Amino acid sequence: MKPEPSEQKPILLIALGGNALIQKNQAGTIKEQFENLRVPVQQIARLSRDYRIIITHGNGPQVGNLLLQQEQCSEVPKLPLEILVAQTEGQIGFMIESSLDEELMALGIEYRPLVSLITYVVVDKNDKAFKNPSKPIGPIYTEEEAAKLDYPTKKTAKGYRRIVSSPKPVTVIEKREIKLLMENDFIVICCGGGGIPVIREGRMFSGVDAVIDKDLASLCLAKEVGVDVFLIASDVEGVMINYGTDKQAKLDSLTPSQADKYISENQFPAGSMLPKVQASQEFVRMGGKRAIICNVDSICEALEGKAGTQFIRESD
Amino acid sequence: MKPEPSEQKPILLIALGGNALIQKNQAGTIKEQFENLRVPVQQIARLSRDYRIIITHGNGPQVGNLLLQQEQCSEVPKLPLEILVAQTEGQIGFMIESSLDEELMALGIEYRPLVSLITYVVVDKNDKAFKNPSKPIGPIYTEEEAAKLDYPTKKTAKGYRRIVSSPKPVTVIEKREIKLLMENDFIVICCGGGGIPVIREGRMFSGVDAVIDKDLASLCLAKEVGVDVFLIASDVEGVMINYGTDKQAKLDSLTPSQADKYISENQFPAGSMLPKVQASQEFVRMGGKRAIICNVDSICEALEGKAGTQFIRESD
Repeated sequence: MKPEPSEQKPILLIALGGNALIQKNQAGTIKEQFENLRVPVQQIARLSRDYRIIITHGNGPQVGNLLLQQEQCSEVPKLPLEILVAQTEGQIGFMIESSLDEELMALGIEYRPLVSLITYVVVDKNDKAFKNPSKPIGPIYTEEEAAKLDYPTKKTAKGYRRIVSSPKPVTVIEKREIKLLMENDFIVICCGGGGIPVIREGRMFSGVDAVIDKDLASLCLAKEVGVDVFLIASDVEGVMINYGTDKQAKLDSLTPSQADKYISENQFPAGSMLPKVQASQEFVRMGGKRAIICNVDSICEALEGKAGTQFIRESD
Repeated sequence: MKPEPSEQKPILLIALGGNALIQKNQAGTIKEQFENLRVPVQQIARLSRDYRIIITHGNGPQVGNLLLQQEQCSEVPKLPLEILVAQTEGQIGFMIESSLDEELMALGIEYRPLVSLITYVVVDKNDKAFKNPSKPIGPIYTEEEAAKLDYPTKKTAKGYRRIVSSPKPVTVIEKREIKLLMENDFIVICCGGGGIPVIREGRMFSGVDAVIDKDLASLCLAKEVGVDVFLIASDVEGVMINYGTDKQAKLDSLTPSQADKYISENQFPAGSMLPKVQASQEFVRMGGKRAIICNVDSICEALEGKAGTQFIRESD
């Protein structure tokens, strides 16, 4: 029943950044989020004819809102961070899935199997990130408010914020299922917010107060499932060097070793462009065909080589 | 690759009631919810050897907590009810899936495909339930507080509560995907909270401020997927007649027409036992092999015919 591997379309993983849902200077109402989603989702619907597709996505503002809400409500038991991540997988998974259902129908594709999966991801309990929480999440506090909190905070440009660990993903629990779904040409939405972080000890899983970088989680999944093209879509046109100076320039293509050179020059800010570049170079290094960093509105163009930054193998 | 239909195990749908997660007189911490889940999930792991399995679940207290939290926090945009349902699908889907992964491994089943799916369910915009909201959800208010709210409320035994419509499920959007997953022996967790309610107009879906009864959504899915055994597990031993009187008795078995008779006598309270009985009798009436109503702790026994109430065909 299922086609032979040689007949199958290449697998494209698209990692959607936060601006796919909430843009700068927006309050982030549900109406805004659905409207913003149209931009990538219309493109993904078109691409589904030529690719088998995995969609991953961020959850920063959404999980931040849930944190803020539960802090201000003393009447219900507080939920640990990994449960809030799970809640955002439900929310955003539904939003992407239903939007994509509509766009597929608009193209006359009356049925293509499409699922949004809860995904949980194992991290290493000895990951050094646990000793050095660095990822700011949730509400902004004054210094006085921050001092009263039960968890570590850090002064950021916006004010004091809670910081959590951001350990590396080790394995995506649903990798075998996602592989099977790819063999059957499902479109799969998964790894929302980088996945629900858990530690595995023997046969037991325990959630941890951490967040996983969604680009690194997407890379982990791409390796485990065997993705052909790895695409990170966010609010930047592509990889920039000399950012913010008069020598600023977008790179059209980049090999892993060229990326290493720029990384050693500290060209890319940690927590934003750096993990995207690292995930992309690693994807190509481990044998992936192509990685792309582009804007959410240029996914199709970037796949045609007309936009974004293409990560290519050293020998290409 | 996939077995012929005749070789395949029967499909068992298990609809888990609220007490599978939070029991009476519990605050409903995450720790309590995970502990409570062990009871049904250990049984489901054992049953997975003999059945293909679909798990559905309620979300009442969880969605109520999210509603309460967002009411008490003015700083973030409020989310419509269907988005909160989606969030609880993420939360509870993760909790069931990870617990079941552990219990499968404990039985030495190192791999059985298992996914938790976001599910959205179409309702009819002309459903008369929209003119007559009746389902209480969320926080309890005083009469004064209730008068200030933007939505309809009703006086209940506990105090004033918001009431929402509970329209009938028309179709589960992911039915074809779930059918394919059943053919491939996946265990599927879906239809959480009765599914995310949407209205379909042409090719567009819009979420609605409503909740779908999870037993009726489970029945709808059971019809659409072709389930063999339909089991509703909650905090009651089975179907009771003359409940609360000295003639109270649990029924061991029941045909659809016997159920009709008891319904006409108003034996079953609306919003609790009535929809369970209606879903079960309808399942058998439409040709399903067996429906069962039992306690969460007696799922295996009930399948052996030693507990719960068995709904059987008129001719059996």
